[in-house]
Amino acid sequence: MVSHMLDEIRQQPDVIRAVIDKEFRSVEALRDAIGARDIRFAYIAARGTSDNVAHYAKYVLEIEHGIPIALAAPSVFTIYDAIPHLDEHALVLGISQSGSGPDVVAVCEQARKTGALTACITNDANSRLAQAVEYPLITPAGVETSVAATKTYTSALAMVALLSTALSTNKPERLEHLRRAADQIEATLALDDTIKALVMRYKDIESCVVIGRGYNHCTASEVALKLTETCLIGAKSFSAADFMHGPIALVHRGYPVILLAPDGRAYDTMEQLAEKLRPIHPAVIAIAHDPGFLAGSETAIRIPGATPEWLSPLVYVVAGQLFAHWLAVAKGFDPDHPRGLAKVTKTR
Amino acid sequence: MVSHMLDEIRQQPDVIRAVIDKEFRSVEALRDAIGARDIRFAYIAARGTSDNVAHYAKYVLEIEHGIPIALAAPSVFTIYDAIPHLDEHALVLGISQSGSGPDVVAVCEQARKTGALTACITNDANSRLAQAVEYPLITPAGVETSVAATKTYTSALAMVALLSTALSTNKPERLEHLRRAADQIEATLALDDTIKALVMRYKDIESCVVIGRGYNHCTASEVALKLTETCLIGAKSFSAADFMHGPIALVHRGYPVILLAPDGRAYDTMEQLAEKLRPIHPAVIAIAHDPGFLAGSETAIRIPGATPEWLSPLVYVVAGQLFAHWLAVAKGFDPDHPRGLAKVTKTR
Repeated sequence: MVSHMLDEIRQQPDVIRAVIDKEFRSVEALRDAIGARDIRFAYIAARGTSDNVAHYAKYVLEIEHGIPIALAAPSVFTIYDAIPHLDEHALVLGISQSGSGPDVVAVCEQARKTGALTACITNDANSRLAQAVEYPLITPAGVETSVAATKTYTSALAMVALLSTALSTNKPERLEHLRRAADQIEATLALDDTIKALVMRYKDIESCVVIGRGYNHCTASEVALKLTETCLIGAKSFSAADFMHGPIALVHRGYPVILLAPDGRAYDTMEQLAEKLRPIHPAVIAIAHDPGFLAGSETAIRIPGATPEWLSPLVYVVAGQLFAHWLAVAKGFDPDHPRGLAKVTKTR
Repeated sequence: MVSHMLDEIRQQPDVIRAVIDKEFRSVEALRDAIGARDIRFAYIAARGTSDNVAHYAKYVLEIEHGIPIALAAPSVFTIYDAIPHLDEHALVLGISQSGSGPDVVAVCEQARKTGALTACITNDANSRLAQAVEYPLITPAGVETSVAATKTYTSALAMVALLSTALSTNKPERLEHLRRAADQIEATLALDDTIKALVMRYKDIESCVVIGRGYNHCTASEVALKLTETCLIGAKSFSAADFMHGPIALVHRGYPVILLAPDGRAYDTMEQLAEKLRPIHPAVIAIAHDPGFLAGSETAIRIPGATPEWLSPLVYVVAGQLFAHWLAVAKGFDPDHPRGLAKVTKTR
């Protein structure tokens, strides 16, 4: 029997195609409001997996569109009852798959009262979050049964990417690149058997680190979160730059280090890091497209096809999801029912 | 012989008094510029320990002064060559003890060109960062010899707190509270022998988690960073809210969990977490003032005196610094020369 998690991992290409085909008008409406309201900065509220989407949005919107992005610390609103001045030149974006995280809802409700432009990304059109904002962007991912979020994560990334294509009116090729990313996810899913086999040598690991940089900082965080949730191991993520300055000290011979190294501007730092790691002889699990990067690693997961860097988080996380899923199975866990994990955060 | 790290930990009360006594005019000048330039949001760039200062600044400035705070992802500027639109209503603050981190310097230099109000917190008045901004705030911490930053961290926190007192013209008691925090650090230093003795039972740990919330999220990150750097263990920090939603799954009987629970608004969440942890029987190391919180823990570190919550990060981190220092010694490491760690990050 296929787990819900694996089934949902496999639905991702279709879900992302549905985002592109059905939601373009919604993101266009938000794009127009961003222009009309002369938005100077954006404030994004999210938690857990959705917080990794928020980090992706920060990179895309700052790099491609020059919009400075603040990521909310929800406790500022909820436990300290503080209201930063989010005026009419601020876009406030709540991200929550369930749309019911009370802290994310609180941020959006408060900000709307003080005149900010409000929007959200959620998988539930009837949620309180969707009701709280002017521009709800609804991911058409369907019900997610597995506690570990997969298709709701990538469909929210795709919604951010779609908004970016709408904001780039003079670069129509970017929408085509997004369509192709769905195909590349499909090609990555074909690695299923390979990954199922190669995780066996890691079935006794109790901790690891996951490292990316730039656009794929979010991918490192998300893969570490999936490993923590489904395999119950201490998986910690780092930016390659931060990691080289300090935490690299904890790596020793045989220690599992997952490196995410898609082609693009962050590639050089990942290569520098791989170079630094070599004399320590850790167990490097490399996820990359470039054969040169993969050559030196203990375990090589080759992503088929080159993806533009800004879209690589949608594709590379899928290899990490499969890795986490099969490692959980290898460890004798049910990936659908990780110990101690609830689907909806109710933290105030 | 006393290590440089311990010597520098002990200098902290005097260094913080020097911040308060010598730097008030500098922060007043910045305060006046923030008012005159009608600042709508702030953008802070920092890395490593300084990034924990940036997180503290986010809480203080958002909660006490309503200024929305974005934390820069330096790679946006350096590897992607992108320039978010930081206009004349944005304050850009670089934080770097050495003042030479090229990515932090780049953020400030770029932003100054696009008209933003620029300031920095650094320990070197002659650094490139201090030259790059209009309002340099210089911590008078003196030379820091230990690779693990301690007094430069707390003096930068004190500078943020001092700026906050300058911004609160109608609350003169806040400056007095800051002065008292220096005394409370001194009282916390008296725990030295106690902490030196109690770390012995943890000398074989290879990993742990460190948990705080709200204002002390930064303290959890900083204590985890000190443990990683000086003890070479996998220490991971979490917000209590995030931790309860997922990563708590990795805790098992005897697993070391450091809980930072000062009095204040975040206290209730910390107590909920302690309650949730109880049936799992981890090795809880509680750092708190409240005797009730300390009662149930395996190891209790009682902070003498109650500190207003917004200033508790200055005091509570000191217990964590001492814990990391003595644990490193117990493990047979030289806390001044952690393996693989360079004082100045040169990452682009």
